Amino acid sequence: MSLILKAVENIPLIEKGDDIADIICKNAPDIADKDVIVIASTIVSKSLGLTFREEDVVPSAEAKRIAALNGKDPRFVQAILDESVEVFTEAPFMLVRNKNGHVCINAGIDASNVGNGLLLKLPDNPDKHAAAIGKSIEQKTGKKISVIITDTNGRAFKEGQTNVAVGLYNIKAIRQWIGEKDLYGMVLEISEEAVVDEIAGAANLVMGEGGGGVPAVIVSGLDLYVDETVSVTEMYRSKERDVLIRGLLELKNEKKEK
Amino acid sequence: MSLILKAVENIPLIEKGDDIADIICKNAPDIADKDVIVIASTIVSKSLGLTFREEDVVPSAEAKRIAALNGKDPRFVQAILDESVEVFTEAPFMLVRNKNGHVCINAGIDASNVGNGLLLKLPDNPDKHAAAIGKSIEQKTGKKISVIITDTNGRAFKEGQTNVAVGLYNIKAIRQWIGEKDLYGMVLEISEEAVVDEIAGAANLVMGEGGGGVPAVIVSGLDLYVDETVSVTEMYRSKERDVLIRGLLELKNEKKEK
Repeated sequence: MSLILKAVENIPLIEKGDDIADIICKNAPDIADKDVIVIASTIVSKSLGLTFREEDVVPSAEAKRIAALNGKDPRFVQAILDESVEVFTEAPFMLVRNKNGHVCINAGIDASNVGNGLLLKLPDNPDKHAAAIGKSIEQKTGKKISVIITDTNGRAFKEGQTNVAVGLYNIKAIRQWIGEKDLYGMVLEISEEAVVDEIAGAANLVMGEGGGGVPAVIVSGLDLYVDETVSVTEMYRSKERDVLIRGLLELKNEKKEK
Repeated sequence: MSLILKAVENIPLIEKGDDIADIICKNAPDIADKDVIVIASTIVSKSLGLTFREEDVVPSAEAKRIAALNGKDPRFVQAILDESVEVFTEAPFMLVRNKNGHVCINAGIDASNVGNGLLLKLPDNPDKHAAAIGKSIEQKTGKKISVIITDTNGRAFKEGQTNVAVGLYNIKAIRQWIGEKDLYGMVLEISEEAVVDEIAGAANLVMGEGGGGVPAVIVSGLDLYVDETVSVTEMYRSKERDVLIRGLLELKNEKKEK
């Protein structure tokens, strides 16, 4: 088995209203059945016009309280709060669950590769946008494809960031190995592979972060296409099952009591 | 830019004393300069004879105490404690820092793909074994290559496992983008890409978990080869910098006080 990842070269700087599917198809003419199209959320957000100016945000008392703890601008903190349903850490950084259920730093609000001093936020329902782009690519190419929208994230216990999936179309987040047999015929009991995050991370090796970076990658050679409704939220661990989240909330409560 | 991952097919079931480098070279004759050879720690541990029987482990009082909390066999808990320098959670699962600094469930002790009812532990110094295998492959092929030894891990906040790097040769864990400019000429401030974990995860898409799985993958097309001493421990976040670890220890202390 082999797997091939190709950068979609020559994608222009994306503006509000640009047709991402059209731009990808024009620059990647050899899309095939079962290909996975990996797209950086940055360009999806830009096409949706999700940029904003920090100075236009009015900070609440809560935002000012948190900003005093973490040294960020209170308006930046307010923008994070506006995109979050729960805050797990306030300082030294804000780890939150965003409106889509994704646990990340700063609710995914970023200034890299945005330009003009603007900030950019993640799309509200990334699965919906993955599906819209995916269906449009399928119409234009006549091929059955999957889409993964990605964002750069830090990791637990380790330095360095990677790309993860934040929106899906025609690909399930998790590949089930449970019940299959291992090399010695023993039945696997706990094996669920996070395939979409593995693909997102792999695509990041081709995307790069800097000015030479590309925001879309075509992945060929996988057999993970599914013709059904999928959601990235299926892999978000519930609070009840998440011992890390419980630990962070304990730490937060203890700090408040001090 | 494009990236190609190829499974090394026909690797036999590995026994103690087997020469991993020799087996990979015989089954992957077209290794090229700068290729990254990704190897599952399972076969490295097997070649080192790191299997053991649960019934041969004598549990301490501490192991019995933890086993009463998490429902595991006290001998299995003792085996985990023997491989760990710190325990962050005791139940419902044991999240520990292993002797090499790697934070993982059960100290990486596993029964999948081992056979004969045996358990398998991770090598003590995976960088050393990555270097030994890598140098041997370089001698046999005359090519300059990198090696990543991997293990399957769970993730924070998300269901599903992925492959991560646990040992390195001739490749740095983190790719620095800090100081480079973004698409709009703005200098990137926080961008450090966890390339070895991205490669490990990508290779997992080709390896698979079940009986049809392959334990080695050749990755071509990257420009990450470095001819210097490297260590996977460079990406392990120190306890002082790790708010998640602090949260887990708070949770553990609170439980003890109850």
